[in-house]
Amino acid sequence: METIQRPVVSFLGPIASYSHQAVRQVFPEPTWELRPAATIDDVFDQVQFGEVKAGVVPIENSTNGSVVFTLDNLADRNGRYKDITVDGEIFVDVHHCLVGHRNPSPVLELEDHGDGSGTCTPTLTDPRPSKPKSKPLANLRHIKRLYSHPQAFGQCNAFISTYLKGVEIFDVSSTSKAAEIVSQDTTGTWAAISSELAANLMQGLDMLARSIEDRDDNTTRFLIIGKNTTVPKDWNLVKQSVGEASTRTLISFTVPHTSPGALAEVLSGFKAHNLNLTSINSRPSLLAPFQYIFFIEFEGSKYDDPDGRVKGALDNIDRVAQSWRLLGSWERYK
Amino acid sequence: METIQRPVVSFLGPIASYSHQAVRQVFPEPTWELRPAATIDDVFDQVQFGEVKAGVVPIENSTNGSVVFTLDNLADRNGRYKDITVDGEIFVDVHHCLVGHRNPSPVLELEDHGDGSGTCTPTLTDPRPSKPKSKPLANLRHIKRLYSHPQAFGQCNAFISTYLKGVEIFDVSSTSKAAEIVSQDTTGTWAAISSELAANLMQGLDMLARSIEDRDDNTTRFLIIGKNTTVPKDWNLVKQSVGEASTRTLISFTVPHTSPGALAEVLSGFKAHNLNLTSINSRPSLLAPFQYIFFIEFEGSKYDDPDGRVKGALDNIDRVAQSWRLLGSWERYK
Repeated sequence: METIQRPVVSFLGPIASYSHQAVRQVFPEPTWELRPAATIDDVFDQVQFGEVKAGVVPIENSTNGSVVFTLDNLADRNGRYKDITVDGEIFVDVHHCLVGHRNPSPVLELEDHGDGSGTCTPTLTDPRPSKPKSKPLANLRHIKRLYSHPQAFGQCNAFISTYLKGVEIFDVSSTSKAAEIVSQDTTGTWAAISSELAANLMQGLDMLARSIEDRDDNTTRFLIIGKNTTVPKDWNLVKQSVGEASTRTLISFTVPHTSPGALAEVLSGFKAHNLNLTSINSRPSLLAPFQYIFFIEFEGSKYDDPDGRVKGALDNIDRVAQSWRLLGSWERYK
Repeated sequence: METIQRPVVSFLGPIASYSHQAVRQVFPEPTWELRPAATIDDVFDQVQFGEVKAGVVPIENSTNGSVVFTLDNLADRNGRYKDITVDGEIFVDVHHCLVGHRNPSPVLELEDHGDGSGTCTPTLTDPRPSKPKSKPLANLRHIKRLYSHPQAFGQCNAFISTYLKGVEIFDVSSTSKAAEIVSQDTTGTWAAISSELAANLMQGLDMLARSIEDRDDNTTRFLIIGKNTTVPKDWNLVKQSVGEASTRTLISFTVPHTSPGALAEVLSGFKAHNLNLTSINSRPSLLAPFQYIFFIEFEGSKYDDPDGRVKGALDNIDRVAQSWRLLGSWERYK
């Protein structure tokens, strides 16, 4: 018997993390083996040293901002990740679910939702709490404990203060860890806030409520990293629509400390070449205090640049910056 | 008897925090009452609602980067802090000390430093550890427990792995908390990594080692916030030298989502007016995913602008940006 060796894509685990959800959206499983890694550093290491073909790491969340661990690896201050390129991006709508075990008493089911009031309690820190935007799918009166990541608790305030008043809160390291703990509960009274994926992948969990987050536009963007200039055709990635077809390029650069105005000069090059900047980030250079590595993302591709505008802006950077690196150009789909 | 009411400056506490050190460097205590606040939000609240005259909050560390809690308050998405201005900055060299109790056995004192080898142990994650840049002032063999903030442990790797091998590590919420815990130790075998200020302000702590951090250029920058356009003369602030006299201005702005190129246009205005950009930051706008509030700091002052360059750049922003705010202009001293 011959074993078929599938290419491997590594993602920030554990199983059922939002990174896992990102990978599943775009990497087709018949073609790819999906492998969780313990840290963002591990994903970068596995890609750089050829243990996996691709990696998926979070880069920013629409509520919490940039993921500095990913930026610091892309900054690559020690040259450890010299072959790594950014080959694409994945957007995941972050919908938190309440998972646990249904109340075994059928009388209470469907009739009575929690305290029944559907309103949350005003507190000193939140005198006018927003109303939760979703209702439980099942009675929640039996829930005594609630497990999740602290960030997820913060994103589900209205639901918790309306339907889970007085429940004891337990902070754990990830939403998937929370689901795992609750899946092993034998009392039937524990619940977790986690991804829908966790409810589907873990044995013995019931879905108690969907989309319990306060804001309905909570989105996390992930980067696909590899060692390519463009995504190979045989990767067979699913094309995720973002509304309009376009391209993106990500670069990093430093400016000479002795040349005041260099940063403004790099940036003015994008206007001069009519390129739309979509984001800017900076991280400490660690060469001297308050010198930075900058990250700029803009519309356009080095590999599809018929009028030479991207080349023009990059030539300008090459002239002005102390150091710079093209991290990657990738496509967006309609 | 008449009580003299001093103006109050609020800082991110607790007592002996690095923010406390920043305030002590610049606010003279005969003139000012120094008051610790529990959170960065509290400092902003107390300044906005007139409970204190000034506040001091961290804005960036040369190793770890920006302090997002401060940026988010400066972003002021809900208009809560509409009167707050940035009136100045303070730099603090972060030197970590080892504090605790001297070994009561005089034989071991001064003769024998810990394991005596002065070298650290290579590990899988750090195969070539850097040598510690300072030596203990006293024998450390009696130390059994080490308390500090996780970030401080990370900044003192070489010293710990050389002189404190096998000591049990305890994470606490701040370096000052660590010093406080150790000051109450009755066994004489606990130590804390904290500021020199903590060793001076807390009863019964001996200095066991100074400047035990791995990098000797670890600096934190703090902002002085108030409700002024320029710092009042009667504040009597100590002028901290930063090498050369200059001015800084900090602004925040958003760009219209419907106008591609607006960000590049705002930024190119600084080059057009020959203004040196010194830092750029962004935070989520929370209006729509992946729209941002940008922060730009540049050389120059709105209040000392003889050739109108600052006015020119701000007029350009006013024309192009969706919204913007001058957070403040302040002086730097030679």
